Amino acid sequence: MKMIMAVVQDIDSAKLVEELTRNNIGVTRLASTGGFLKRGNTTLMIGVEEERLKDVIKIIERICRPRKQVVTPFPAAPGETMIPYPIEVTVGGATVFVMNVERFEKI
Amino acid sequence: MKMIMAVVQDIDSAKLVEELTRNNIGVTRLASTGGFLKRGNTTLMIGVEEERLKDVIKIIERICRPRKQVVTPFPAAPGETMIPYPIEVTVGGATVFVMNVERFEKI
Amino acid sequence: MKMIMAVVQDIDSAKLVEELTRNNIGVTRLASTGGFLKRGNTTLMIGVEEERLKDVIKIIERICRPRKQVVTPFPAAPGETMIPYPIEVTVGGATVFVMNVERFEKI
Ligand code: NI
Ligand code: NI
Ligand code: NI
Repeated sequence: MKMIMAVVQDIDSAKLVEELTRNNIGVTRLASTGGFLKRGNTTLMIGVEEERLKDVIKIIERICRPRKQVVTPFPAAPGETMIPYPIEVTVGGATVFVMNVERFEKI
Repeated sequence: MKMIMAVVQDIDSAKLVEELTRNNIGVTRLASTGGFLKRGNTTLMIGVEEERLKDVIKIIERICRPRKQVVTPFPAAPGETMIPYPIEVTVGGATVFVMNVERFEKI
Repeated sequence: MKMIMAVVQDIDSAKLVEELTRNNIGVTRLASTGGFLKRGNTTLMIGVEEERLKDVIKIIERICRPRKQVVTPFPAAPGETMIPYPIEVTVGGATVFVMNVERFEKI
């Protein structure tokens, strides 16, 4: 068995947990902040059998792939004449560590 | 040395931490949610020497074993005639991963 | 690649994260409580290449080394005649686990 520690963006974590659960993969969400990714992040602890490791990493890649998103910034201070225009930001991304599990117990 | 990551129910975590500490086993509680167990859970990170690993897993099994508990659900909306009756639910359970620690430092 | 799980005191964690980041070492902060250290603590998950492991442990030792600190306790209840005097306490310390990472993916 393998243990995956995946640091993902908050905006991707709910969808990723849902997709893993739907595939019958056990996952626990740890509260985490800062470091590997600029924005708010979540660390997922995922237990997986060797033969399904590849599939799980593919799921993470699919859900968390970095992609462009167009956001419109909030208008500046009221009375200001500058009109806010949409800008493109990159969201997503993940840092994935796979470690060996020597023993696994379901109590 | 081994690292145990144990996902346990919130209702069992305080007693388990107490019991491990009483046995001189270092344990850190990580805030966690959802996934392996239906209800609120806590992830415990436990560092243990190989020769005590068996004992620690026995402690986890003893404290966190799944067991039946009788709970009386809250009455339904006021004015409703249905009388709530006690039901049996299963509480407890744990998911335990053991990983090898290559190096351990107490600073 | 190696994964370091370091349990450090809250008072040292911000400085340690800053120092690791400045050295280009990826780090994620997990919310944690109790156990290995008496006071409030934080668990840092640090991914590092083998050749930099020694350096990272040296950084942790430098920032988190146990040291004496003089604190003046709060005065007792108002009206009490006892005058509080400064006392010396030990702060810092860390518990460091190093585990092997079999696979690492940056998505
Ligand atoms: Ni296996
Ligand atoms: Ni050992
Ligand atoms: Ni390596």
